Amino acid sequence: MKLRIFVTLKPGVLDPQGRAIHHALGSLGFAGVDDVRAGKVFELEVADTTTDDAIDGMCRQLLANTVIENYRVERI
Amino acid sequence: MKLRIFVTLKPGVLDPQGRAIHHALGSLGFAGVDDVRAGKVFELEVADTTTDDAIDGMCRQLLANTVIENYRVERI
Repeated sequence: MKLRIFVTLKPGVLDPQGRAIHHALGSLGFAGVDDVRAGKVFELEVADTTTDDAIDGMCRQLLANTVIENYRVERI
Repeated sequence: MKLRIFVTLKPGVLDPQGRAIHHALGSLGFAGVDDVRAGKVFELEVADTTTDDAIDGMCRQLLANTVIENYRVERI
């Protein structure tokens, strides 16, 4: 079973990486960019028997810092 | 117009971050994880007039290292 897990900063949390990219795009001459938010995506190949609880556990214990990040699991 | 841009390593390119996560998941006791690939996701808010060429340019010039990474643009 293939999973895609998105980890993004919670709204309101400062995103320095996104800010830097936004600034750099402007310097490169790309107009019309209003906002940039950076995040992570993990593609996991797991056994079909892997439970939702186990997947949640992987996200909460390792893949996301739930204090400042949200995560979303997608089965592909 | 909101865009989501996925940047992932090309198949065959060594993914040390994915390897480290895979190892760490095992150490945390999560069984059944066969593979982990790490990537980036960027959410951009851009003007509706932004052309496909401009978006491609943003990806090629800044967001992705096209030597080792693939990128995919999704309009949301």
